[in-house]
Amino acid sequence: MSVRYRLQCSADAIDARARALAVEQSIEMPIEAVRDERVRAEIVGEVLDIVPSPQVDDRFDVVLALAVETTGDEPGQMLNVVFGNCSLQPDVELIDLDLPAATLAKLPGPRFGIAGWRAAVSAAADRPVTGRPLGCTALKPQGLDARALADLAFVLARAGIDVIKDDHGIADQSCAPFAQRVPLVQRAIERANREKHEAGGPLAGHRSIYAPTLSGGPRRLAAQLRVAGDEGVGALLCCPMIIGVPAFAELVRAEAGVPLLAHPALAGHLRIAPPLLLGRLFRLFGADATIFPNWGGRFPHARADCLAIADRARGPLGPHAPAMPVPAGGMRLERVDEIVGAYGPDTMLLIGGDLLRAGDALAERAAKFARRVAEARGTDDEPTAASRAGAAR
Amino acid sequence: MSVRYRLQCSADAIDARARALAVEQSIEMPIEAVRDERVRAEIVGEVLDIVPSPQVDDRFDVVLALAVETTGDEPGQMLNVVFGNCSLQPDVELIDLDLPAATLAKLPGPRFGIAGWRAAVSAAADRPVTGRPLGCTALKPQGLDARALADLAFVLARAGIDVIKDDHGIADQSCAPFAQRVPLVQRAIERANREKHEAGGPLAGHRSIYAPTLSGGPRRLAAQLRVAGDEGVGALLCCPMIIGVPAFAELVRAEAGVPLLAHPALAGHLRIAPPLLLGRLFRLFGADATIFPNWGGRFPHARADCLAIADRARGPLGPHAPAMPVPAGGMRLERVDEIVGAYGPDTMLLIGGDLLRAGDALAERAAKFARRVAEARGTDDEPTAASRAGAAR
Repeated sequence: MSVRYRLQCSADAIDARARALAVEQSIEMPIEAVRDERVRAEIVGEVLDIVPSPQVDDRFDVVLALAVETTGDEPGQMLNVVFGNCSLQPDVELIDLDLPAATLAKLPGPRFGIAGWRAAVSAAADRPVTGRPLGCTALKPQGLDARALADLAFVLARAGIDVIKDDHGIADQSCAPFAQRVPLVQRAIERANREKHEAGGPLAGHRSIYAPTLSGGPRRLAAQLRVAGDEGVGALLCCPMIIGVPAFAELVRAEAGVPLLAHPALAGHLRIAPPLLLGRLFRLFGADATIFPNWGGRFPHARADCLAIADRARGPLGPHAPAMPVPAGGMRLERVDEIVGAYGPDTMLLIGGDLLRAGDALAERAAKFARRVAEARGTDDEPTAASRAGAAR
Repeated sequence: MSVRYRLQCSADAIDARARALAVEQSIEMPIEAVRDERVRAEIVGEVLDIVPSPQVDDRFDVVLALAVETTGDEPGQMLNVVFGNCSLQPDVELIDLDLPAATLAKLPGPRFGIAGWRAAVSAAADRPVTGRPLGCTALKPQGLDARALADLAFVLARAGIDVIKDDHGIADQSCAPFAQRVPLVQRAIERANREKHEAGGPLAGHRSIYAPTLSGGPRRLAAQLRVAGDEGVGALLCCPMIIGVPAFAELVRAEAGVPLLAHPALAGHLRIAPPLLLGRLFRLFGADATIFPNWGGRFPHARADCLAIADRARGPLGPHAPAMPVPAGGMRLERVDEIVGAYGPDTMLLIGGDLLRAGDALAERAAKFARRVAEARGTDDEPTAASRAGAAR
């Protein structure tokens, strides 16, 4: 597999630095002390290319060949191989990773993908919502009890918002424990769905779904998955970098049975390029949608990086379905058209605090968000090629 | 609980920036939209202090009070609360975290601690090896088969090295699968222990122990824990940031039954101060020893930071036993006295590649390392206060 790093290094030292990195991420010992012929030939990392940055004197892109067998086809060990030790070397950034087709095919990838999200929010799975982005909002603030969160969920679902997720900080705390909160919120959302249907009009048949936050160690995750399954929630949220990508890929992705929203908490964007981590890797590990900080909000991400995350989430990737990009992080209702214009219709827009800001007028503002999302078509009325590929799977 | 961050910010903006951070890490929505009185009074983060850096104009230490109930006393959610979202804001570093005594007491902490390591490497548990540091080395390179790793382990154990761990890159790959490698290596080490005993002399009664690498999702971890238990390995190694701290604390710490070595792979891309993450938090989550890059090796960590990691690993921490600091990362045999002089005897020295460099003279160089470690006493012949506290538990 080939791995691209960006190194801060002087020109006269870059050859040696690149070789040292290749050793660090493969055998982690002096090459001359390796006596096994196979290891020397097949396991020691190799420098494929060194390209000076056109802009900066002391910056180089270094491409290494690392042995794909050292990953054991396991997501955690893959992160270990490409960025385990060198995460502790501040002159190194991880930029990109190209995996051979056979390895791509062994990684879990999204189970549902964009087409799965469209089916999940549809009244009938064989008539998926198409041609428009999806809307998403968050139950918050943490600290509310389960009843208050359920009341809030009812208002948001009744207003016609597609996906209602827990705030990522709402986990399994004593004020609203998972096993108590999830049934209450799920039933409130089902009641709202029935009311919309009975009221007729534009929201007749609209189906809101709930995505509660999974958190904790394997036993707690398994217990939460049972509750979520028993209650029939429509989706699940979790933070792969907090629960660990091996648990995300092996346990959550395998047993959720519903689309997964990945949240970037603790994914500290400084030294793994966000398009790689949030776009490609989270998708490969099983995310059906990936939340990321959009430009112009509370996070400093550049427009080009955000669009690149979406490209990596939806673009061709071996046999894997596309994942839904979810721009977020302080987005406002007024920006719906702009955002959909940039990302196109295969996008889920997440707006949280800007709806709650409305206070007594929450129901009205939430309905306005839902309508804007339903009417937004972006630059392209057609589903993207990636979405069509996903729908065909 | 109080949390200390370092912010890069201009003086005229720091008040607002600190308040925004307090909101980001607590309710993540506009304060004015919070209607619940309890949430306003008890959950919204509060700015306790803002201290300008004495050295740099645009740097401030900001101390926040965050509600400890939002952590749910769960390690992963604790990381989420203190650094989940703001890991995505590059102007923020996490420096320190003070937890109330009741919360400290609810976190797992080391099950064995320094005293446990000393008991584990002793021929008789009631006569622990005291007064000297422990020596540790790594089986490498990855890519060798299980038989070759077992042969290497035999040489290192026969030479008298206390702890023989897998290289952290040796996980569960096809060239030396865990279930095949662990029995072979463990038996090789047991054979070496018998030979030392039968040969008499200074190594009679010396007990080497093996620490294989645990990796993967919950199911794979559980299977590996069963193999390790069946074979009677003396310790285990894992990377908490890769398997996820919830799995580390809830599954591995609970079920290992032997001391745990935490490895810092993937821990460096976060802007969390190493003394906090590698010293205090890994210990709180259950590590009995913490490996970290020492100064003067392949990683750029400063001497003061390294000593601070050791202080945090061994210093008073509620009811918790001290954990063993393990300076590593390109250490050389010639530095044993210097390193023990700096850290004192309650230290485990990890030297890997510098032994293997000896080629045909490996057995001799490994024996020299073991002797130097056995004779090193550091600046202080007595166990530290922290070690005594641990031994008394």
